[in-house]
Amino acid sequence: MRPSGRAPDEMREIEIITNFTKHAEGSVLVCFGDTKVLVTASVEERVPPFMRGKGEGWVTAEYSMLPRATHTRGSREAAKGKQSGRTQEIQRLIGRSLRAVTDLKKLGERQITLDCDVIQADGGTRTASISGAWVALRLAINGLMAKGLIVEDPLPRKVAAISCGIVNGAAVLDLDYIEDSGADADANFVLIEGGHIAEAQATAEGATYDEEGLLRLLRLARIGCDRIFAAQDKAVGA
Amino acid sequence: MRPSGRAPDEMREIEIITNFTKHAEGSVLVCFGDTKVLVTASVEERVPPFMRGKGEGWVTAEYSMLPRATHTRGSREAAKGKQSGRTQEIQRLIGRSLRAVTDLKKLGERQITLDCDVIQADGGTRTASISGAWVALRLAINGLMAKGLIVEDPLPRKVAAISCGIVNGAAVLDLDYIEDSGADADANFVLIEGGHIAEAQATAEGATYDEEGLLRLLRLARIGCDRIFAAQDKAVGA
Amino acid sequence: MRPSGRAPDEMREIEIITNFTKHAEGSVLVCFGDTKVLVTASVEERVPPFMRGKGEGWVTAEYSMLPRATHTRGSREAAKGKQSGRTQEIQRLIGRSLRAVTDLKKLGERQITLDCDVIQADGGTRTASISGAWVALRLAINGLMAKGLIVEDPLPRKVAAISCGIVNGAAVLDLDYIEDSGADADANFVLIEGGHIAEAQATAEGATYDEEGLLRLLRLARIGCDRIFAAQDKAVGA
Amino acid sequence: MRPSGRAPDEMREIEIITNFTKHAEGSVLVCFGDTKVLVTASVEERVPPFMRGKGEGWVTAEYSMLPRATHTRGSREAAKGKQSGRTQEIQRLIGRSLRAVTDLKKLGERQITLDCDVIQADGGTRTASISGAWVALRLAINGLMAKGLIVEDPLPRKVAAISCGIVNGAAVLDLDYIEDSGADADANFVLIEGGHIAEAQATAEGATYDEEGLLRLLRLARIGCDRIFAAQDKAVGA
Amino acid sequence: MRPSGRAPDEMREIEIITNFTKHAEGSVLVCFGDTKVLVTASVEERVPPFMRGKGEGWVTAEYSMLPRATHTRGSREAAKGKQSGRTQEIQRLIGRSLRAVTDLKKLGERQITLDCDVIQADGGTRTASISGAWVALRLAINGLMAKGLIVEDPLPRKVAAISCGIVNGAAVLDLDYIEDSGADADANFVLIEGGHIAEAQATAEGATYDEEGLLRLLRLARIGCDRIFAAQDKAVGA
Amino acid sequence: MRPSGRAPDEMREIEIITNFTKHAEGSVLVCFGDTKVLVTASVEERVPPFMRGKGEGWVTAEYSMLPRATHTRGSREAAKGKQSGRTQEIQRLIGRSLRAVTDLKKLGERQITLDCDVIQADGGTRTASISGAWVALRLAINGLMAKGLIVEDPLPRKVAAISCGIVNGAAVLDLDYIEDSGADADANFVLIEGGHIAEAQATAEGATYDEEGLLRLLRLARIGCDRIFAAQDKAVGA
Repeated sequence: MRPSGRAPDEMREIEIITNFTKHAEGSVLVCFGDTKVLVTASVEERVPPFMRGKGEGWVTAEYSMLPRATHTRGSREAAKGKQSGRTQEIQRLIGRSLRAVTDLKKLGERQITLDCDVIQADGGTRTASISGAWVALRLAINGLMAKGLIVEDPLPRKVAAISCGIVNGAAVLDLDYIEDSGADADANFVLIEGGHIAEAQATAEGATYDEEGLLRLLRLARIGCDRIFAAQDKAVGA
Repeated sequence: MRPSGRAPDEMREIEIITNFTKHAEGSVLVCFGDTKVLVTASVEERVPPFMRGKGEGWVTAEYSMLPRATHTRGSREAAKGKQSGRTQEIQRLIGRSLRAVTDLKKLGERQITLDCDVIQADGGTRTASISGAWVALRLAINGLMAKGLIVEDPLPRKVAAISCGIVNGAAVLDLDYIEDSGADADANFVLIEGGHIAEAQATAEGATYDEEGLLRLLRLARIGCDRIFAAQDKAVGA
Repeated sequence: MRPSGRAPDEMREIEIITNFTKHAEGSVLVCFGDTKVLVTASVEERVPPFMRGKGEGWVTAEYSMLPRATHTRGSREAAKGKQSGRTQEIQRLIGRSLRAVTDLKKLGERQITLDCDVIQADGGTRTASISGAWVALRLAINGLMAKGLIVEDPLPRKVAAISCGIVNGAAVLDLDYIEDSGADADANFVLIEGGHIAEAQATAEGATYDEEGLLRLLRLARIGCDRIFAAQDKAVGA
Repeated sequence: MRPSGRAPDEMREIEIITNFTKHAEGSVLVCFGDTKVLVTASVEERVPPFMRGKGEGWVTAEYSMLPRATHTRGSREAAKGKQSGRTQEIQRLIGRSLRAVTDLKKLGERQITLDCDVIQADGGTRTASISGAWVALRLAINGLMAKGLIVEDPLPRKVAAISCGIVNGAAVLDLDYIEDSGADADANFVLIEGGHIAEAQATAEGATYDEEGLLRLLRLARIGCDRIFAAQDKAVGA
Repeated sequence: MRPSGRAPDEMREIEIITNFTKHAEGSVLVCFGDTKVLVTASVEERVPPFMRGKGEGWVTAEYSMLPRATHTRGSREAAKGKQSGRTQEIQRLIGRSLRAVTDLKKLGERQITLDCDVIQADGGTRTASISGAWVALRLAINGLMAKGLIVEDPLPRKVAAISCGIVNGAAVLDLDYIEDSGADADANFVLIEGGHIAEAQATAEGATYDEEGLLRLLRLARIGCDRIFAAQDKAVGA
Repeated sequence: MRPSGRAPDEMREIEIITNFTKHAEGSVLVCFGDTKVLVTASVEERVPPFMRGKGEGWVTAEYSMLPRATHTRGSREAAKGKQSGRTQEIQRLIGRSLRAVTDLKKLGERQITLDCDVIQADGGTRTASISGAWVALRLAINGLMAKGLIVEDPLPRKVAAISCGIVNGAAVLDLDYIEDSGADADANFVLIEGGHIAEAQATAEGATYDEEGLLRLLRLARIGCDRIFAAQDKAVGA
């Protein structure tokens, strides 16, 4: 039995509130149960130095936990003067995941930055961030298309991410904090609408797992991402 | 006529939603119109080095704007590796304002940190932060008193803050972003329930002002803070 | 009775020594009693990025305490790798105060940086800095006008600053360190020749104050600034 | 045909030179073809703050590329004043991988740091680092056991890591730089002697992959790690 | 002929004003011609971590140029967030030079920090700093001895430093900025009263020099340091 | 008797292995006994900002110790976020020494960076770095000349460096770590083929030395550098 009473392949409630803030070109509050992340998409009509002159755009992400998103207060990275390795690892993952479904040529020479700020954490903040970031990116691109700045849709497919893991010997989907902190193995999958994998990351904590374990986790992830794809569709009115 | 159509002494709608997040000992979302700040109060059973062994507590604050709280995206301070002078100035002001109404001896040797994270900005983020921080602090102290960790109330009075300024020659209350960016003079007052001043800061931008101008701004601030005191009372169920 | 034996509205001796160092376009040692600040004005024929192409100039300031300007040695900010919040707050105040009396259009596309380095501290370092910075700026602008680089005077009025406070219940002018560290309320006023206010900042420490208190402090500040204006005139030979 | 002329499941030559430097408790130069990493294991009789008083040890890693390990010179992280996200991600992976096979209780309250400095890079620097780090750790632990400081072996199993990827549609093992920079998908597997997985990380670059693709990569990784386990055995004289 | 009209072995006027500031245990303004350095000695009753528990004291130094000590304004190291290599090199040299004449055992477990802040630069700032730092240290130690905190004098000998160089083929003493910037070789000698060398640093700039050149520079340095020793004696009333 | 059994004027074995790594334009592993430094020369077709538009090139150096190059592990500068004063002092010395023998005009508008990474330390790392850097620079320049990018040789003479010191009262050449840590005086000389001095740095540690001591050290340095010049010739096949 899971602490939350959920079935092994049961996700927490997903909520994606669009236009949560008013200034950004795309803005959502994405909730996977008690995990709540504010994601904004900001469009800038310039690209970073390494992309200049290629006639292509760029999609990047930044990630942060508010200091008291967690059970005990963590120190503020701006006050410490540097981002942790964990933060950098997560924001690199979010950026790669979104770029995996974006046609940078069709985006044109502009950059879209996805800011993922965790308001409240209860496990799965990086997967909620990726899943919500797709909606924010979709909204921002819709805006650019509505203004005629982009002609062909550079974002033809959805991307979603979900965590799963092995807890007390059983493979479970969408771990909350309690499960996550005691998991034997912990995985994050980033899946693309249609069945392909953009990213798979699985880590053994204490115990290890084998090929069969990896496949079981992947199958759970497919179940979870189908749920998220539906919620994304609903959020963008598709 | 003000851009928002408000009367000179008319505030924007104030909303203070308590328990906005679940982990913090005190948590509010405070809204002054479109300005929205998440404030959490975190209790730690230790004090900073300079306060050790005095038998007193400490109240401090940190402040941050989410990168896209504003019209155009600002760079993330954690990514730049340092907090701006503006950020530091504001968080010092918030901390002083709350300490002005807290009896540190009665608080006991513990620290309460008020994290003020601006979700959406439309002028007056520092004054909304102070006003909301009082509610978060009140909730955290109520919790400590309910557990018997504090016997005598260390927070007998309320504190609130409001901006006012001279815009197109007229003194107005609670400036939004449009007014703020074109103001001739810009002031922030931190007032204590009962009429005393904790902080007064008035800056001429372009034009200057005289003693009479300063007094007019102060009188507007009294009107505004009375409104905020009422909203604070309502939020904490007083 | 004040520790120094001064009357409540009595300032310390003001001394402004011009051309204290030889390289800067303007250079003064300003002394308010035992508080001694070296201020230099450096002219550069370029403006910061945010001012480029506007046909206007810029005036900015930097502030620092020498490590042993104080009773006990403070750590060197260059060695710690960052400027404190206090330092940044003060240098922002100095810059704003000088810009309040400078016509940036008449200055032309050049920047003048006012470096305020506190050689010895005994209270009031920021107000001495502002008061001395005006003299250094005046000297630098005189030089530019003498060379024909500026035609119309961009600095038609003087600016001065002074601290005042409530100590043992009495409003007093120009606090020294002993008074400052025990003050109930502490204010800094930046006044413009002719009577207008550029900045007013008043903070309650422990006790608070009311409108009448604020006005009494402002009236003392007027007395002080008149003294400083006279000293500035004498220093520049006006 | 692969650029190197290798078969799809053919690794580059592996060389592990022990005692490459003389001061460290364990030291190896590990070469996967032209990728050369110097790994040292340093034993310290103290643990980091978060592990104190638990009666357990800690194993951690740091990773760095020499500036000219690569085709064009990269800037030195010490000179830039911070480690890149990539560096931090890799050193976190190395540390987790080694801890996956270390019994921290049996290690006792001491820390072993594995410094992985890339002398020359030609793809696969993180997997060569992990594979070499196991040998350096083994040597350091052998030394502690020989001195009687550790009684029971805390490192009963080997760990190895290898990259594989999909290049021009074909799954290939142990990518060199040319293959890596043009791969459709890129994966790193950390495998434990006996068949279990410690870490699996697979990223699509441009193209994506499916379950079958993931399994094909994992099978290649098993072939590669068996080769590495043999080289590790030879290096430590097992 | 030297630009200043001085003879090759002629120093600039040396002035050492003691008690230039009032808080420090030792304080001097040392002038070598137009080079002016404020040096303070600060006594702290604790030693840095690497010296704890040895029953010995420590003498260290910090060095900084005020931004406009030079012909054109240099950026402030505190604002840039790090000390330059030049600054660190100089402050390490000052510290070593003073420790060369201090008996750390007799000093007892306390630290004396010598802060050398260059008010105005015209060549030779490091040598003026060392020469003035000795006086500040002497004054601080005299104070400790007068209070009975130190019994035996830990500073029995003087130390002084001077620059010399080869300019237009001729060896000259005490280079000012014009000579320094065009010198073929540039040397700094730190000499101890009685004739021994604490430090010798000679650098060829463009041209090089030989053994005879090095000896000629050393002989000039002896002439200069004798002059400085006399000025130090006069300053401390010896 | 020296700990190593060497005669006072006897150097350790010198080994210079060229082409130690494959990507750099010049690459050597230089060994002075157990001190081993990897030096690479990287050519870039641009110069730093302060050299632009002069029609001249630049030669610069960076230096680093691998964390476990030494007896006990030192912390990694990239992880600490800054280079130590010692590191900066050494890399400035290496750069100056190489520039002393390079004709920057003949080099053309390009920069050559010499990265000196100490693999293993046993005293004399800076002098081994300089001596090896000359070989790496020579190889890089040979490559530029072979491609016809440089016509006239900008490096007509060799430069080498060696440490010497006074240990137990005796002047000795090429100190290893044991001697270095107990030396009374410690000197580094950078000598140019033909007999001139580029740099001389001599520091008394505890004891001091006189003119005769300085000359004795310089004579030892000549013996050492002649040995190094021969090894350099052999390495480059001259």
